[in-house]
Amino acid sequence: MVKVVILGQGYVASIFAIGLERIKKGELGYQGVPLKNELPIKIEEIEIVGSYDVDSSKIGKTLFDVASKYWDGNIPETLKEVKVKKGVHLKSLRNLPIEAKGLDDEMSLKDCIEKLVEEWKEVKPDVIVNVCTTEAFEPFGEKEKLLEALEKDEKERFTATQIYALAAINYAKENNGAAFVNAIPTLIANDPAYVELAKENKLVIFGDDGATGATPLTADLLAHLAQRNRLVKDIVQFNIGGNTDFLALTDTDRNKSKEYTKSSIVKDILGYDAPHYIKPTGYMKPLGDRKFIAMHIEYESFNQAIDELIINGRINDSPALAGLIVDLVRLGKIAISKGEFGTVYPVNAFYMKNPGPENMHNLPRIIAYEKMREWAGLSPMFKA
Amino acid sequence: MVKVVILGQGYVASIFAIGLERIKKGELGYQGVPLKNELPIKIEEIEIVGSYDVDSSKIGKTLFDVASKYWDGNIPETLKEVKVKKGVHLKSLRNLPIEAKGLDDEMSLKDCIEKLVEEWKEVKPDVIVNVCTTEAFEPFGEKEKLLEALEKDEKERFTATQIYALAAINYAKENNGAAFVNAIPTLIANDPAYVELAKENKLVIFGDDGATGATPLTADLLAHLAQRNRLVKDIVQFNIGGNTDFLALTDTDRNKSKEYTKSSIVKDILGYDAPHYIKPTGYMKPLGDRKFIAMHIEYESFNQAIDELIINGRINDSPALAGLIVDLVRLGKIAISKGEFGTVYPVNAFYMKNPGPENMHNLPRIIAYEKMREWAGLSPMFKA
Amino acid sequence: MVKVVILGQGYVASIFAIGLERIKKGELGYQGVPLKNELPIKIEEIEIVGSYDVDSSKIGKTLFDVASKYWDGNIPETLKEVKVKKGVHLKSLRNLPIEAKGLDDEMSLKDCIEKLVEEWKEVKPDVIVNVCTTEAFEPFGEKEKLLEALEKDEKERFTATQIYALAAINYAKENNGAAFVNAIPTLIANDPAYVELAKENKLVIFGDDGATGATPLTADLLAHLAQRNRLVKDIVQFNIGGNTDFLALTDTDRNKSKEYTKSSIVKDILGYDAPHYIKPTGYMKPLGDRKFIAMHIEYESFNQAIDELIINGRINDSPALAGLIVDLVRLGKIAISKGEFGTVYPVNAFYMKNPGPENMHNLPRIIAYEKMREWAGLSPMFKA
Amino acid sequence: MVKVVILGQGYVASIFAIGLERIKKGELGYQGVPLKNELPIKIEEIEIVGSYDVDSSKIGKTLFDVASKYWDGNIPETLKEVKVKKGVHLKSLRNLPIEAKGLDDEMSLKDCIEKLVEEWKEVKPDVIVNVCTTEAFEPFGEKEKLLEALEKDEKERFTATQIYALAAINYAKENNGAAFVNAIPTLIANDPAYVELAKENKLVIFGDDGATGATPLTADLLAHLAQRNRLVKDIVQFNIGGNTDFLALTDTDRNKSKEYTKSSIVKDILGYDAPHYIKPTGYMKPLGDRKFIAMHIEYESFNQAIDELIINGRINDSPALAGLIVDLVRLGKIAISKGEFGTVYPVNAFYMKNPGPENMHNLPRIIAYEKMREWAGLSPMFKA
Repeated sequence: MVKVVILGQGYVASIFAIGLERIKKGELGYQGVPLKNELPIKIEEIEIVGSYDVDSSKIGKTLFDVASKYWDGNIPETLKEVKVKKGVHLKSLRNLPIEAKGLDDEMSLKDCIEKLVEEWKEVKPDVIVNVCTTEAFEPFGEKEKLLEALEKDEKERFTATQIYALAAINYAKENNGAAFVNAIPTLIANDPAYVELAKENKLVIFGDDGATGATPLTADLLAHLAQRNRLVKDIVQFNIGGNTDFLALTDTDRNKSKEYTKSSIVKDILGYDAPHYIKPTGYMKPLGDRKFIAMHIEYESFNQAIDELIINGRINDSPALAGLIVDLVRLGKIAISKGEFGTVYPVNAFYMKNPGPENMHNLPRIIAYEKMREWAGLSPMFKA
Repeated sequence: MVKVVILGQGYVASIFAIGLERIKKGELGYQGVPLKNELPIKIEEIEIVGSYDVDSSKIGKTLFDVASKYWDGNIPETLKEVKVKKGVHLKSLRNLPIEAKGLDDEMSLKDCIEKLVEEWKEVKPDVIVNVCTTEAFEPFGEKEKLLEALEKDEKERFTATQIYALAAINYAKENNGAAFVNAIPTLIANDPAYVELAKENKLVIFGDDGATGATPLTADLLAHLAQRNRLVKDIVQFNIGGNTDFLALTDTDRNKSKEYTKSSIVKDILGYDAPHYIKPTGYMKPLGDRKFIAMHIEYESFNQAIDELIINGRINDSPALAGLIVDLVRLGKIAISKGEFGTVYPVNAFYMKNPGPENMHNLPRIIAYEKMREWAGLSPMFKA
Repeated sequence: MVKVVILGQGYVASIFAIGLERIKKGELGYQGVPLKNELPIKIEEIEIVGSYDVDSSKIGKTLFDVASKYWDGNIPETLKEVKVKKGVHLKSLRNLPIEAKGLDDEMSLKDCIEKLVEEWKEVKPDVIVNVCTTEAFEPFGEKEKLLEALEKDEKERFTATQIYALAAINYAKENNGAAFVNAIPTLIANDPAYVELAKENKLVIFGDDGATGATPLTADLLAHLAQRNRLVKDIVQFNIGGNTDFLALTDTDRNKSKEYTKSSIVKDILGYDAPHYIKPTGYMKPLGDRKFIAMHIEYESFNQAIDELIINGRINDSPALAGLIVDLVRLGKIAISKGEFGTVYPVNAFYMKNPGPENMHNLPRIIAYEKMREWAGLSPMFKA
Repeated sequence: MVKVVILGQGYVASIFAIGLERIKKGELGYQGVPLKNELPIKIEEIEIVGSYDVDSSKIGKTLFDVASKYWDGNIPETLKEVKVKKGVHLKSLRNLPIEAKGLDDEMSLKDCIEKLVEEWKEVKPDVIVNVCTTEAFEPFGEKEKLLEALEKDEKERFTATQIYALAAINYAKENNGAAFVNAIPTLIANDPAYVELAKENKLVIFGDDGATGATPLTADLLAHLAQRNRLVKDIVQFNIGGNTDFLALTDTDRNKSKEYTKSSIVKDILGYDAPHYIKPTGYMKPLGDRKFIAMHIEYESFNQAIDELIINGRINDSPALAGLIVDLVRLGKIAISKGEFGTVYPVNAFYMKNPGPENMHNLPRIIAYEKMREWAGLSPMFKA
């Protein structure tokens, strides 16, 4: 059994909940779940025990009600059992056309944390999954700075994710272990302040920023080129979608965090910083959750021949991440039982765009996948 | 020092010769050479000591003269030192607009082999590289059948490559070791008859069919999807080019060999035989050596979401293969010194579309690359 | 009121029937219908009064039953009123995995024609629409040859379409006017034998081969390039789909007809025969009715600069043609009332891939559209 | 004979000069010149008599010297005869890595205009072609406002183009007719203030913003869809290049002008404002003058089927515009002799992204081309 609390009951969380219950009902295979049902902990053992949001139209509703906004099919009845609770806002939805309210409107940050911990102690989650909307954030770096800002109740300094992660740390301590999966760009697994506190308090952190869409594909394409010593002359990657995440990224500050995350791949994989233009480019509502990507890569082959690759895709954003979360919650529980507190690079290297801890490299995903399997005690997928 | 004899002085062999000499002159970096100059045997140590063809307009000409048909730049003067000798034809250029003549027009197959071996004993190649035009062939399977057909001088049964490989076997025996790189689709490393003879006579075989263009890229893309357990619904891959190889593939019989080669990738990598249409599709002269590829992949992600990838490319065919040969001739010499006669899967798995020996699987190239480095005594490219 | 008989109750005919009834019910706008509801004859006035097929699983069924195989939505109840009758086969489904039977199994060609005419005289269609499966055919050219083959009952010489068109001619004579829309590649509007008979017997023929998918788009793209005097160096167009039409085209003979049709566009529009490779390339069942197209065009611009365009598409084949038929049946009735018997180039030039009569050119569709409007008495779509 | 003065001796002007002289030498055909040599005024009659720039590294150099920066081939010797003179700056290169100086550094705007007119009276151009770098501008709208700003020497209010156009007006008056071709986005042909002054002073204005690259192609693609009544659901168009024009567009103010220009196409052609994201997206130096475009169009066909088109291209920016200028200077002289002062919509509608005068629509280019030919006294390109 793995008990899960969700932070941010949006598109990803809803597809995760729907798909999970459909798998339990036998309506769905394991498509989109990297480790299928190979782990000792089975998919059918995952149970959602809590959910948080700050969208006032969701708070108090059941997951069944919320999920029906994101999918046309028959929503599993079992989702009627969990209700969305009020979470932490800290302006995480600012500039978006959503009416938001948060615990932080009513109380100090410390009280928010205490309230969350109390609520979690009742439902006893093993894993807390953060799939909030992309935030404009600043990492802390040093534990002292983080604790000082909390002490001073500096609400402007924190994002919702940063408060949730602190709550997870306190909860882990009291629960004798827990895991926090940070699937959004805010640096948590890459912030030494958080990793240090996690180690001290028996929290496993996976993060940061779930590796979906064009980024892991780019990593593997670049590895393919690097292994043939093709000299990459330029990389262009455009990205446009119609979900809230793209809308949020039209906000300049948030976009900046995202750009930071993605750019390191080029140098990590190629070994040199080939000219590149890789950013989420725009928001177009009718595209919905199925984003359009366009990529252009030009490189020099043997004897200075110039080759070109153009990749286009229509890719469903939320199901891609939801499928990863089915693995991450199970790996979270495994890490707890292994006692690997702090953060776990072999897991992050496959599942995250910005794999913590700080200063760790991006690996080609095809290689990272096999190393992750090894960490999880599974045999390699590819043998000669 | 690695001495090399080339079989088939066409586009690939000419670009190989030009690029090699330009590297020696310092005009060119190591772009397109997967192992760069990391091996103990340096690129600058490679020397072309012989070349064979059956195109009557090439026989007797220097590599300098022939190479100038394939590249616009300044051809290195050093290529004036090697002349193209008459090789084995056996109708390998039939249906192509080329006037061809071969040793086999004048003598028995056994005499052809003997003549080749005598010529090679004079220039003492370490490695013989086969880059002939794609042939319509049938593998032998059993050593006895092969030797019997030779005994009966069955010229209709053999292709040029199959005779060259026999010559290489005889030469290896007399030379106390040699290597044969089969970069075209004819099955040699996958034909147990040849592998057995190679083992017995101290020949290293690398083969079959140099892994350039869309095939290794497809392998890595499919591995990327397999690792996320995305259910591939269909794969389409079109391919059109304007070089002699594409012209040869418009010949139905030859096309069949090629198709056989490429189709196994899907099942090898995905683990199931997703519907696919992967074949060289046409010939269009103005495209020249820079082929156009178009690929469409549709797959099912989590919760039955349908994603699509479209890949287009303009890829120079001959330089891609020429760059691999720069490695293969050096690895051939290394294999000889290691005494690894027969065929060497860890090398084939990265460099070949149809990696021998028979019944061995295709691996994702990103993984095969690291295993090949390990075989060659090099440290991994990608470390965390 | 326009009464319509359908020949070939497959994908196109079913989508046509469904869409038409949905428009009548107000469920659907005029999307995909080029002339919307601008003609004096309204879409709501179209009535399907008969349908023919040779698939034994369809004969005797209602359109409601047949249509449900081709569309997931709610099939309009009104389609229960028409039943599929047995048509002419003449091996038009040979090599396809369909059990077929036809009137021609039981009687002479002349008797088939007579039977069809008798049946049509009962339901009194204005327009007969041919959307049979692509056939392997040979045009007649001369009226005498056509009549002689009919006289001798040469069943091997005729295709189903060629018999249906003769039936339409006889029916038109007795009905004092009718129209025959030939939406498949078999040459009817381009066969002088048929056009002459049509004129003599008051039949309007529109044909041949409904202009959907990549062909009209290519016409307009090439016109765009021609008007800038860009020198097209090569055109590649691949096409793969999963409907019966693509399956039929894997049959070499049929493919040949199709190829003939499409190739003339390049010379007609550019004024010179740029190297091109334009053919339906393959069949891939999971693609269904939504074909994948890939196009590559390379051209020389001012001062010898080389530009490239790559066009990819996923295009629903049957709805594209069904939308055109909504216009063609209305234009057929208009042509009858204008007395324009034989064939009508201004209509064909927009709606057909191979616009009859024989030897008439392909026009850029953007221009042909405006000329067709003028013929139909409508004002231009584009004014300054 | 057509005498031409160039404003802005950058990429476009240099390719124009090179191509023109190569045509005169017989090195080049008429590729990329829409009207080829069909006009009564022949290409060989065009003569460049003057050139202006504000880049201090160009002023005083010959066209031969400047052009060699933009093309690798043999620069025609005849370009040694013209020297680049100092032009008007008004911060048109601000934020770009170019050291600039202009006449306006030293004198009043009125004096700048007078100096230009004096210089032009010496070389007697028929046509003045403006191909300056994209500017951040504000149109005047009313003649009085324009004249008042000039009177007050408001250097902050004017762009270089706006001053050049005033000089052209004064020169036209004294020369009894002249033409001004505005190939950049600054509104001149769309600014009633300029059009009125042009009419009063015998100036022909062609403008605004030469229609190259993706915009005219989009116009024709949308017309293609509109004529089939396909409901466009979304249009995405990305654009990235490595020339100065793309660098300039990274400047927010300038980008705004460009965006304004391009967006009107959608509504003009489709008749409704389909959701669209069409903007120059980024700057990537290694792409050079050959920009990469990616376009995605999704639309609804008959019976609500959803189709998708994806267009990618590598398109040489400057030659495309240079080829148009070869026509525009000849058409300019024709307009003068016809006495069509002010601006000429039939010419603008084909050659310009934002065809003046104000409030005139974009036409599909395939139609606009034929109308332009008619204006120029040429027969249609496409006849049945």
